Amino acid sequence: MTTPRLSFSRRLRKSPFEARSHVGATAASVYNHVVLPTAYASLEEDYWHLREHVQIWDVACQVQVEVQGPDALRLMEYLTPRDLSQIEPGQCMYAPLIDENAGIVNDPIILCLAPDRFWLSISDSDVSLWVKGLATGAGFNVRVFDPDVFPVSIQGPKSDTLLSRLIASPPEDIRRFRFIKAEIAGTDLVIARTGWSGQGGFEFYLSEPEKGEALWDAIVAAANDLNLRSGCPNLIDRIETGLLSHGNDMTLSNNPIEAGLDRFFKIGKASEYLGRAALEQIASAGASQRLVRLVVPGDHITNPRETYPMTIAGAQQPGYVTSICHSPRMDCHVGLGYVPAGASAVGTRITLSTPQGMTEGRIADEHWQVASTP
Amino acid sequence: MTTPRLSFSRRLRKSPFEARSHVGATAASVYNHVVLPTAYASLEEDYWHLREHVQIWDVACQVQVEVQGPDALRLMEYLTPRDLSQIEPGQCMYAPLIDENAGIVNDPIILCLAPDRFWLSISDSDVSLWVKGLATGAGFNVRVFDPDVFPVSIQGPKSDTLLSRLIASPPEDIRRFRFIKAEIAGTDLVIARTGWSGQGGFEFYLSEPEKGEALWDAIVAAANDLNLRSGCPNLIDRIETGLLSHGNDMTLSNNPIEAGLDRFFKIGKASEYLGRAALEQIASAGASQRLVRLVVPGDHITNPRETYPMTIAGAQQPGYVTSICHSPRMDCHVGLGYVPAGASAVGTRITLSTPQGMTEGRIADEHWQVASTP
Repeated sequence: MTTPRLSFSRRLRKSPFEARSHVGATAASVYNHVVLPTAYASLEEDYWHLREHVQIWDVACQVQVEVQGPDALRLMEYLTPRDLSQIEPGQCMYAPLIDENAGIVNDPIILCLAPDRFWLSISDSDVSLWVKGLATGAGFNVRVFDPDVFPVSIQGPKSDTLLSRLIASPPEDIRRFRFIKAEIAGTDLVIARTGWSGQGGFEFYLSEPEKGEALWDAIVAAANDLNLRSGCPNLIDRIETGLLSHGNDMTLSNNPIEAGLDRFFKIGKASEYLGRAALEQIASAGASQRLVRLVVPGDHITNPRETYPMTIAGAQQPGYVTSICHSPRMDCHVGLGYVPAGASAVGTRITLSTPQGMTEGRIADEHWQVASTP
Repeated sequence: MTTPRLSFSRRLRKSPFEARSHVGATAASVYNHVVLPTAYASLEEDYWHLREHVQIWDVACQVQVEVQGPDALRLMEYLTPRDLSQIEPGQCMYAPLIDENAGIVNDPIILCLAPDRFWLSISDSDVSLWVKGLATGAGFNVRVFDPDVFPVSIQGPKSDTLLSRLIASPPEDIRRFRFIKAEIAGTDLVIARTGWSGQGGFEFYLSEPEKGEALWDAIVAAANDLNLRSGCPNLIDRIETGLLSHGNDMTLSNNPIEAGLDRFFKIGKASEYLGRAALEQIASAGASQRLVRLVVPGDHITNPRETYPMTIAGAQQPGYVTSICHSPRMDCHVGLGYVPAGASAVGTRITLSTPQGMTEGRIADEHWQVASTP
């Protein structure tokens, strides 16, 4: 069965960079109603290049939701169990948003633009409708809207060198999860040391879409000796880095504790938030399943269309794989999946059922080590 | 520039029909996080076939949002200016949902399953988050959830013949915008006389995804002498029929009056609804622009990636085309677009600016007639 080509219409919101970023893209998906390139040369070639050089990514699909007004901070706090009380202008915080059942609605990075003004830089669900619905229903005094801001990212070890050629202030002054305002190619940008790879880099938030191609060209021109290429979030790199993909590794059916996102917050923050009762109940009873890293020998398994079922040594209940691929660096598969909480110890043997057959593997630690056998 | 192929992962929710419906699909898009085939043979061949025979469409992307509970009807009324007070089980109603500014959030068909239980059969935005947000924020006593229901549609003039072979009761007993419950291929279905074409047909709502392929096969088997083919919503047919596409012909920036959706409701229904003040203000002041049908000679213009600007005879303000294609039956282009309200008379001359050049056309009536010249 041949994979169909992507068809375009106004319904798929146009990225200001697409005249550049779609050149050479061999595969794409749709994310937040925006086209997201998903492969250029190949998954492996893109991966090695990303680890060695610098890439430019069209991540306009990382849509912003702006929340502004006297109740903005109170509303932001209401959306997430993460404590935002110390957030300050220039800071980015990763924060899972949850619903009344503690289900994960989205996992944005929150940018604090001013004490009463925030962007949620979102993964693939219409957070604007969620936040507007809550704010309207509950009477928060805020404006919630789409500010027409489009990110483009540079990722890879040469990102600092590239940025140093584009702005006056030294890139090293931008700490991780911090942003500055600067001008490139005649447009004012928010520039954050963030991005969806494990290789470091920056995201440039563009507010003037008509300047998208000029910005792209200026970045490319400054990288003439850096072996820059167009790229995109890379499946191998993001699994190795342990970056979770909403819709793949967690959905509204998952809570942040079982997904391991509770490392970003303490249960019991002072401010009121939606889903507190449900989340505290899960925290006290213990999550029934846990997201774990998986190491599986071989190079034959493709990423699942849905999930792959998995049996776990010593567990009655099955588990399932949510993302998996071959790591050319470790020469085995690296994967993510859920197992019963009582059978999540590092080293535990698992058996995956995939279209490529049954394969054995083990639960790994965060460095992909299989420390011990139970 | 080559169009990229669509890449798949768990994030794109799997249709229970995709092992069947993706066979032969040459193009596809993503709609409500689900893959939607958009072409099989070609736009024109698919169009002629749809008008003459019967097609089977995978419209699993037409996701359902279920609202259930003591406040269900009151919440449904709160979402839309359309009066739902007389809705009864077995009835479908097309209803634009609006926000506090009277912007169109979505335009679902609402199915009344019981006096306290509804499905919103939605276009491409996360209505579940909108409705959950409002219900949670404002304290409606309802459950809002995704019921895992997937529609498959038969459309075309032979749809009644085909359905008569699949169910015991006569299809003519199902009136337009009504549904029955019936069993096909061992699965209980909701079957509605609805669908996104002008050629008539039915939508089958499947609640048991594991039976999707058997259902598809049973429909195909019953059509062995009807020249049935796989198909999909057809751009030519839907423009000719005047079916608006949310995201293309109206967005959150449009109100239902300018989009012409006010023919589905009377301003001033009894029940409370969100956006009433904004909508009544627009109704009394008059909308500043109007969606109109456009007839443009030739066959050279392709559907816009965004919109095409348009100048209108006698108007200071420009307009824009949202959807356009060549109609092989009328041998001209048929299009939809917005013009200033004061320059929307049938027959008015317009000039489109497209990548294929400047082209003149006229505003048409709902039968695509250019009755008079102003």
